[in-house]
Amino acid sequence: MKKIGIPETIESLSTKKTDRLYLNDFFLTWDKSMDELTAVLEVAEIFRYMRKLNISPKVFDSGIAVSIFRDKSTRTRFSFASASNLLGLALQALDEEKSQIAHGETVRETATMISYLTEVIGIRDDIFLGEGHRYQKEVAESVHQGYLEGVLSRRPTVVNLQCDIDHPTQTMSDLLHVMNYFDGMENLRGKKIAITWAYSPSYGKPLSVPQGIIGLLTRFGMEVALAHPKGYDLMPEVEDLARKNALDSGGAFSKVDSMEEAFQDADIVYPKSWAPYAVMEERTQRLKAGDDEGLVALEAQCLESNKDFIDWTCTDELMKTTKEGGALYLHCLPADITGVSCERGEVEVSVLDRHRVPLYTQAGYKPYIIAAMIFLSKIENPAEKLTEMVNEGRKRVL
Amino acid sequence: MKKIGIPETIESLSTKKTDRLYLNDFFLTWDKSMDELTAVLEVAEIFRYMRKLNISPKVFDSGIAVSIFRDKSTRTRFSFASASNLLGLALQALDEEKSQIAHGETVRETATMISYLTEVIGIRDDIFLGEGHRYQKEVAESVHQGYLEGVLSRRPTVVNLQCDIDHPTQTMSDLLHVMNYFDGMENLRGKKIAITWAYSPSYGKPLSVPQGIIGLLTRFGMEVALAHPKGYDLMPEVEDLARKNALDSGGAFSKVDSMEEAFQDADIVYPKSWAPYAVMEERTQRLKAGDDEGLVALEAQCLESNKDFIDWTCTDELMKTTKEGGALYLHCLPADITGVSCERGEVEVSVLDRHRVPLYTQAGYKPYIIAAMIFLSKIENPAEKLTEMVNEGRKRVL
Amino acid sequence: MKKIGIPETIESLSTKKTDRLYLNDFFLTWDKSMDELTAVLEVAEIFRYMRKLNISPKVFDSGIAVSIFRDKSTRTRFSFASASNLLGLALQALDEEKSQIAHGETVRETATMISYLTEVIGIRDDIFLGEGHRYQKEVAESVHQGYLEGVLSRRPTVVNLQCDIDHPTQTMSDLLHVMNYFDGMENLRGKKIAITWAYSPSYGKPLSVPQGIIGLLTRFGMEVALAHPKGYDLMPEVEDLARKNALDSGGAFSKVDSMEEAFQDADIVYPKSWAPYAVMEERTQRLKAGDDEGLVALEAQCLESNKDFIDWTCTDELMKTTKEGGALYLHCLPADITGVSCERGEVEVSVLDRHRVPLYTQAGYKPYIIAAMIFLSKIENPAEKLTEMVNEGRKRVL
Repeated sequence: MKKIGIPETIESLSTKKTDRLYLNDFFLTWDKSMDELTAVLEVAEIFRYMRKLNISPKVFDSGIAVSIFRDKSTRTRFSFASASNLLGLALQALDEEKSQIAHGETVRETATMISYLTEVIGIRDDIFLGEGHRYQKEVAESVHQGYLEGVLSRRPTVVNLQCDIDHPTQTMSDLLHVMNYFDGMENLRGKKIAITWAYSPSYGKPLSVPQGIIGLLTRFGMEVALAHPKGYDLMPEVEDLARKNALDSGGAFSKVDSMEEAFQDADIVYPKSWAPYAVMEERTQRLKAGDDEGLVALEAQCLESNKDFIDWTCTDELMKTTKEGGALYLHCLPADITGVSCERGEVEVSVLDRHRVPLYTQAGYKPYIIAAMIFLSKIENPAEKLTEMVNEGRKRVL
Repeated sequence: MKKIGIPETIESLSTKKTDRLYLNDFFLTWDKSMDELTAVLEVAEIFRYMRKLNISPKVFDSGIAVSIFRDKSTRTRFSFASASNLLGLALQALDEEKSQIAHGETVRETATMISYLTEVIGIRDDIFLGEGHRYQKEVAESVHQGYLEGVLSRRPTVVNLQCDIDHPTQTMSDLLHVMNYFDGMENLRGKKIAITWAYSPSYGKPLSVPQGIIGLLTRFGMEVALAHPKGYDLMPEVEDLARKNALDSGGAFSKVDSMEEAFQDADIVYPKSWAPYAVMEERTQRLKAGDDEGLVALEAQCLESNKDFIDWTCTDELMKTTKEGGALYLHCLPADITGVSCERGEVEVSVLDRHRVPLYTQAGYKPYIIAAMIFLSKIENPAEKLTEMVNEGRKRVL
Repeated sequence: MKKIGIPETIESLSTKKTDRLYLNDFFLTWDKSMDELTAVLEVAEIFRYMRKLNISPKVFDSGIAVSIFRDKSTRTRFSFASASNLLGLALQALDEEKSQIAHGETVRETATMISYLTEVIGIRDDIFLGEGHRYQKEVAESVHQGYLEGVLSRRPTVVNLQCDIDHPTQTMSDLLHVMNYFDGMENLRGKKIAITWAYSPSYGKPLSVPQGIIGLLTRFGMEVALAHPKGYDLMPEVEDLARKNALDSGGAFSKVDSMEEAFQDADIVYPKSWAPYAVMEERTQRLKAGDDEGLVALEAQCLESNKDFIDWTCTDELMKTTKEGGALYLHCLPADITGVSCERGEVEVSVLDRHRVPLYTQAGYKPYIIAAMIFLSKIENPAEKLTEMVNEGRKRVL
């Protein structure tokens, strides 16, 4: 979005229809209208500007933000902690091993028990296809029911910190990054982005980032080109959605067979590893069956097949084929860097090094995006409240 | 307590003698006078009302709340975190594995080291008979001594989050729940509560909940009926206390031989599993002796004996025999539910499902009860301070 | 420092040159000027006085304090948590196992990712000679670069919570303790301190405390006597530094061959175990080589050699040989106490018991020292800001 000031951004926010965000969850970007997505981006930018002016956006005097991480995380963990803190909430992690969940407690019960003074629940559950999103919905339905029954005095918001389908806090940060890079949402129209598979010596990375990207960026009139080796398909329903989005927005969604083709004349590239779809499905089956040996075998087999595509890597050579040889390189990080974190990986170190500053800038939007999602789900009149806070001008650092 | 407003409740609180709660700990409900217990309940209700009015009860601008959990916990962990946060304290968990306690440090030293800027220490230590309460007292005595010697500038309060003897944050929440259900403390007089053992395919659950219940509810003129299979006795001194309480309060305390007899015409039922007394004692011995094999053998033997009493379960049939077939069903949760969390458990799913809303309401009092315990130990003139806060009306959510 | 009041201490602080502390890190005390060290001590004392007057020193409305502990800790962990909380920061621990660091991420990247809304990063990394300080510097350089490049909107401060070379939050607390004990910094001149090795049945304790002590206390005109068995040398460059400091300050630094000689007429004694220098070096080698068996063998061998010096222990007998038999006994705690935490250890229980109150007082300075280090790195005009806060007089407890 154009680097305009706080008053203009609040003014623009006030024209958006955001009532459906209030007291609601954030699961998938495609659940949300363009107005709603834009509102999230605008509030994130307002929070970022306020920080520069040393104005505190703390709206809570007390309250709990619960995090549930069912997979490793650094970036998102710290982003959620930072966002919660920025708004005045205290983080409380649900550690499923230290809790009585081990005793066989239902999702509905646990969700209620952690929610009595809770404003938001952030969940990462991305390992098993068909599971993560389902679990997040179940938590949300549980607390919603508790709220309707009067058991909970407030309705905690569920924020998807990555599920098997989408990773909205990541892709919205990515979107804000490219908007700022290209100086406004309207300038994304017609820009080409290559979202491509890349080789990594690890296995089982979720599909949610590439899915989230094609599901989101096709809504802005962009030309989205997806490339991956045979067998590394994404969920067909998300591809269908991307196709429909592109039609609606006047953009394009295409599937191509090689990284080379995708990169050709691209304004933006997003090369990233993910697991083969069939492996993800098989993995869920074997896990449910408690087949530990089978899981190990699957991993070995998967790493073996990955090797067939070791040439799917983002090189300097390839970067030269992009628009004027200067495409914006995106990655959700950490990247598997050839010669740094592994022998052969997703990207050459020279490419990563040259793009380090924009990459780290990209990651830096996430705390603000999450704070915006929480804020819009908790505050009924966001533009009014932000105006009030900016006018009061409470200092963040004394 | 009757659903009256904040001013009336503060007015009532102001008539209570609470000075002995100030700068003191909360170990066992029977250490406390009726005035003191009532004050805790009243402050908890005031905090709950304040939340509905969006008034913040934050009394600390900074300060640490330390939690020490020597057993799994979800409910109490989150309740303590929420209560601390509500009052403005930051939670800091003492993780005994990550600390230097492994180096053989004394309780006195650790207690001091974690207390320099600490206002409250919440402790769960419920696994070993004769150990938990003793440990909590030792922590309290250590910080008290540190305070007297000028080593600590403040006297941290110890709150019992469950020991081997009592579970006061649970039973006080239970009490507040039944008081609100029956529309006032005075209406508890003459009500019958069945606190009974129930079958569970797990072993070693602490005795503190049933003990806490008979030690507390006998003080309110209730008719308390305790039932358990042979060998599942509670600590004899707590039973003696319950008998004495009942005499003093004009209530009754009886031991009966079956769940059926206890449930007969009961207004409230609290069927719950616990470990055989002799097993709890033996377990402590074997643990102290480092007899790991013996512990495994004991567990197997205990689960085997449990099976003799698999019929001690709370069924719809049994619920029909309670007062007008409509007794209030209590559980501290999580319950072992037949067909849900285990094959045969403490309660039929239909009973639990029908009582889900009151059960979750019961659990929801705990953060307020804990906050009230902390508040009364830290604030010398509670009624005055609450009036001040309510008049100022600082918003919890902006 | 003399027990004078807040205004005088602020007045004194205002005469110190502290601009080089602003936006800077705290690695080693010998990086800092006398003015800078004195400023840290003065701010720590002001915070301690403010607490007694119930005035809050909260300067942050929000913000994150990250802790990275690569070794066990109780005291420092709680001190850092308390200091952060006192200033208004929320603690977020980086748990390297739960993060994606396992995936082979670079220090630079991790440092950036945890820093977007972060004000301070506290690091303990003391196990491997040549590693801890290097790592802390790398983190600091990473966030500094991020700040210069505009990736980070603020420059997070790195605070050394113990490295392989120094343990400044400990030694500055020790210094403040002895200053208050002897009623002012000027009274340290000519006082003799014995910093001596002592036997412990544990292995591999870092050298950072004795190194930090000789590197710091030689700057105040003290007579520092170091004693240890053959082979338990400290880093030669730190000994050189101590020698130079002593020359500059008009004090003395001597190495003697026995505990007895060091204790003779000492005003202060600091007997403490540490690992043999060669073992520390060998250990780093074996660890880098992944030689687990070799590490176990090294430990056994080291414990065996330790036994040759089992008589290096602080006894009542020895204490009688100190100045008027009444030297101040220091320890960073936990001490290995003969007959309490081990069969034979660093100190007799009677010595420890008699010095318990001053020992716990010593440890109690650490939260204030850390808060002072953070404050001075974040606030450009510390004396002015403190005056403002004291005048406003916001209550810590309502």
